[in-house]
Amino acid sequence: MDYQSIIENIYQEVLQNENQGAVASYIPELAKVNPDQFGVCLQTLDNAEYGIGDWQTKFSIQSISKVLSLSLAYKLVGGELWERVGVEPSGNAFNSLVQLETDNGIPRNPLINAGAMVICDFLISHTQDAKAEFLNFIRKICANSQIDYSESIANSEKSVGYLNIALCNFLKSFGNIKNDPEEVLEFYFHMCSIEMTCQELTRTFMFLANDEFRTPEGEKVLGIKQAIRINAIMQNCGFYDESGDFSFRVGLPGKSGVGGGILALHPNKYCIAVWSPKLNAKGNSSRGMQFLELFTNRTSSSIF
Amino acid sequence: MDYQSIIENIYQEVLQNENQGAVASYIPELAKVNPDQFGVCLQTLDNAEYGIGDWQTKFSIQSISKVLSLSLAYKLVGGELWERVGVEPSGNAFNSLVQLETDNGIPRNPLINAGAMVICDFLISHTQDAKAEFLNFIRKICANSQIDYSESIANSEKSVGYLNIALCNFLKSFGNIKNDPEEVLEFYFHMCSIEMTCQELTRTFMFLANDEFRTPEGEKVLGIKQAIRINAIMQNCGFYDESGDFSFRVGLPGKSGVGGGILALHPNKYCIAVWSPKLNAKGNSSRGMQFLELFTNRTSSSIF
Amino acid sequence: MDYQSIIENIYQEVLQNENQGAVASYIPELAKVNPDQFGVCLQTLDNAEYGIGDWQTKFSIQSISKVLSLSLAYKLVGGELWERVGVEPSGNAFNSLVQLETDNGIPRNPLINAGAMVICDFLISHTQDAKAEFLNFIRKICANSQIDYSESIANSEKSVGYLNIALCNFLKSFGNIKNDPEEVLEFYFHMCSIEMTCQELTRTFMFLANDEFRTPEGEKVLGIKQAIRINAIMQNCGFYDESGDFSFRVGLPGKSGVGGGILALHPNKYCIAVWSPKLNAKGNSSRGMQFLELFTNRTSSSIF
Amino acid sequence: MDYQSIIENIYQEVLQNENQGAVASYIPELAKVNPDQFGVCLQTLDNAEYGIGDWQTKFSIQSISKVLSLSLAYKLVGGELWERVGVEPSGNAFNSLVQLETDNGIPRNPLINAGAMVICDFLISHTQDAKAEFLNFIRKICANSQIDYSESIANSEKSVGYLNIALCNFLKSFGNIKNDPEEVLEFYFHMCSIEMTCQELTRTFMFLANDEFRTPEGEKVLGIKQAIRINAIMQNCGFYDESGDFSFRVGLPGKSGVGGGILALHPNKYCIAVWSPKLNAKGNSSRGMQFLELFTNRTSSSIF
Repeated sequence: MDYQSIIENIYQEVLQNENQGAVASYIPELAKVNPDQFGVCLQTLDNAEYGIGDWQTKFSIQSISKVLSLSLAYKLVGGELWERVGVEPSGNAFNSLVQLETDNGIPRNPLINAGAMVICDFLISHTQDAKAEFLNFIRKICANSQIDYSESIANSEKSVGYLNIALCNFLKSFGNIKNDPEEVLEFYFHMCSIEMTCQELTRTFMFLANDEFRTPEGEKVLGIKQAIRINAIMQNCGFYDESGDFSFRVGLPGKSGVGGGILALHPNKYCIAVWSPKLNAKGNSSRGMQFLELFTNRTSSSIF
Repeated sequence: MDYQSIIENIYQEVLQNENQGAVASYIPELAKVNPDQFGVCLQTLDNAEYGIGDWQTKFSIQSISKVLSLSLAYKLVGGELWERVGVEPSGNAFNSLVQLETDNGIPRNPLINAGAMVICDFLISHTQDAKAEFLNFIRKICANSQIDYSESIANSEKSVGYLNIALCNFLKSFGNIKNDPEEVLEFYFHMCSIEMTCQELTRTFMFLANDEFRTPEGEKVLGIKQAIRINAIMQNCGFYDESGDFSFRVGLPGKSGVGGGILALHPNKYCIAVWSPKLNAKGNSSRGMQFLELFTNRTSSSIF
Repeated sequence: MDYQSIIENIYQEVLQNENQGAVASYIPELAKVNPDQFGVCLQTLDNAEYGIGDWQTKFSIQSISKVLSLSLAYKLVGGELWERVGVEPSGNAFNSLVQLETDNGIPRNPLINAGAMVICDFLISHTQDAKAEFLNFIRKICANSQIDYSESIANSEKSVGYLNIALCNFLKSFGNIKNDPEEVLEFYFHMCSIEMTCQELTRTFMFLANDEFRTPEGEKVLGIKQAIRINAIMQNCGFYDESGDFSFRVGLPGKSGVGGGILALHPNKYCIAVWSPKLNAKGNSSRGMQFLELFTNRTSSSIF
Repeated sequence: MDYQSIIENIYQEVLQNENQGAVASYIPELAKVNPDQFGVCLQTLDNAEYGIGDWQTKFSIQSISKVLSLSLAYKLVGGELWERVGVEPSGNAFNSLVQLETDNGIPRNPLINAGAMVICDFLISHTQDAKAEFLNFIRKICANSQIDYSESIANSEKSVGYLNIALCNFLKSFGNIKNDPEEVLEFYFHMCSIEMTCQELTRTFMFLANDEFRTPEGEKVLGIKQAIRINAIMQNCGFYDESGDFSFRVGLPGKSGVGGGILALHPNKYCIAVWSPKLNAKGNSSRGMQFLELFTNRTSSSIF
């Protein structure tokens, strides 16, 4: 399949539509991004790489990072995770406190904010220095020592992070945060501030698409069964209140972030990252959604 | 792959565990079933069929039937369906009225009771005789003119169906039922009363697993894109409040019914039906869940 | 105090404001009423009666009737009522199903629709002919054999009563309706269809304001403790989601109906009925609310 | 009426029942209190004072203090308060976040935690030093310069106050807290830590029972209309999820605290304070509820 011309055609097609939606504005630093940037990177199982547009520009991957912290925690902690966080879609906005109240402080899944905080809490308990070890984990998978947190994004999010402070303290009130909420939030805001390019994103996520994936040091990131399960969670919970619609229209496991990035993958076929900052009403990249729907249609590569 | 010995081994293994859970008792007629029955049927894309246990015994397929009514409605009505019913997982018990109140009478998806009622309402509006045409649709796909409603099950469910009467009238109060609620409920209770064997179930559902499927008359049931979308909906919404867990542990699109049946499929590989009447706390067949988890693990055939 | 001139002054004052709000339109028959009618009747403990405007015109008292069915049930059944219905304000719209789901089918109080249906169910169980005995109960208190149900209103409400049908069947699904839901609804729709004038309303409700009240036959309607408790329930639950505001601005126990009537009373002082069909956003008579706020302010007769 | 012997008789009667319930344990410092303490003080409009048991022992008045902060804010700010906090009963537990989510950050009333935090925020905005001015306000009304905060209680509550931290930050995320959440919480925890005896409580609250009340300096605390409205709010919202039941059984405006205190009053008749630390399931003093129910029954002094 001529992937390069396929992604170029779709890219041009999407570009011709009006660039709808709005850049996430609740984090001051994110609001400064140029809304017309648009990049795509596709990497197949044979390590062929296809890129177009701003595919080598760094952006804030935000919630996409939650899949990586989940992967590290699953590696370090194992199935014990599921005693404190569920694997069910939320059926609610990503930061709803209602569900926590109904479910006695057990977040529905690890990809909504509350669940990702519980995962951060696990990482703090199971590492010497969660911030350093998490960064190191990503750098090794991506084979790229330049990946880093953005202090300005982390601080910007912290300065207006009242809802997240509320969530974390609410979890603590149920006993489902074991460390100091401030320490958990400090790590959480950094975890979400990771910056990558589309190219770096696809490289980083190949361990979930390729059963044979190993780091340059020859290390396996996760066992196959664990990777399968993380893909299953992405499928059901990766797009907040639009997870069903993403399955319905695109048909791939994936995860979006409010920075406008979307990472999706077809097990044993490819990893694809799309980035465009303007978000639709559900908080997912408008152009990203359009691109991916056209892509799985043209390539007949929905998993269903 | 030696499917026959694989399903026999898993069958024996599951049999050795205690038969946990409870038969659905809220419908008097369902409560009469022998709880120790247990059957499995697997059909692959090359039409090879493998069966074990009570795989040729009829049982009440209940909610599994909702996928069939959805398929017929999608065929007859097209994308207009999605104006009156969503494609998002519910995050709630299958018969919750809360969500309808929050969402102004738009059910989250067509596989929860409220959504299936809206689909019934569509079918009544788009057919001369919904009951007859729906049955005919199934008989043609399954190539089996013996498939039928169970009047005793339909009547039994109606006699205690207060919650469903409430749901249907609640939908009507939002204007999302166009016909008389009593007529919709009459069809709905019949739709859920269809009886099949595991063998008949796998035969019936092959049109969602096999892109080339045609009825004996040579008719295509759904276009590929439509079939993909119904599989995506099953993946996200097929197991009520346990949909995420089914994805996580089994990794296939599927649908369960309170009669103890589960139908699952791997696109372009196979269809599998398991039946055992005792249900777990979430309302899905206990043995069915165990069997399928072992099956996709042994055959490495999760879609993820 | 010169009550006649007080109510005349306030009446003129309210008349000069725009007649805001909208007549209840969800019941076809109610929508036909002339929206500019406006009547007030005040009756004091010494049986002095003061009226102005359309105070002798019949209107549909609707939910005000729930206080009367509650009174009869309390008389016949006693404290056992409170095992199946609460005495707490609802904090929700008058017909919310959410709360029933959370509270396992126990309505928050007897003045919301669900609670009034449970009371109707009690009356059916404790009488030979609930409809006849309830009407007889009111006629005796009011000393007026002309009080009657409106068959056209009852039928009109039934024809569009999907939400009430949903509520009643939902209660039945929790086991909190003992009789046939259709029978309960038949009585419920009639119970709400009673027609009275403002004058008849104040006469009817004097048994809750006057400890010494007796029917012409010399019968006591309720014991003092029971009457006190019904007043307490009206205070907390009489105005749906505006109960707190009514306490705050008017400061009397009372009950409103979607027909535009409001009945309020000051224990040991007076009963007052106001009627004007246009409702505010919370479903209470706009002019009624204005009138009563001015009235308790001018007469310094809030109970607080 | 011989109030002294009435309260003595009821006191003995209540003492003979088992001392049921449990001392509030979520605040470590509160859990240390001797659970068998029990005091009552009644003050009538003619300034006669009747006391029994531990009526002159200090205890933590906790949420009762919210009526005082509301009173000061109403005095300083006026009706503008009601733009940011409602006057409706909550129909939910006192610290529920669900309702805030539904109501976009507007607390249902000023006597639940969230509402009291908004009031604290108002006080910070309208004073130089909210902590000092609030204390001074109480000391002047009570004519007692010994009234004080308990630093140990305030710190104890702060050390485990995750739920309140969550609430305050959640309010801030809706923009309904104008100052720094930490500053608001600091004041809030102090405001709730005030200690008084039953005697001091009744003296302090006479300004809500007596229209003619003035401080020793001759100052009026609130206008009559304002006092009436605060009484109305206490009636509807003073006992969390048991407000309706308190109206139903006792029939007085009042307010409880988790320290085991209850303050209630009959406008133009009396103020009464009861204190016993063991709480019932709804978080209100068990013996306090019993005592007050017997008291209004014996003295026929329900307001209804």
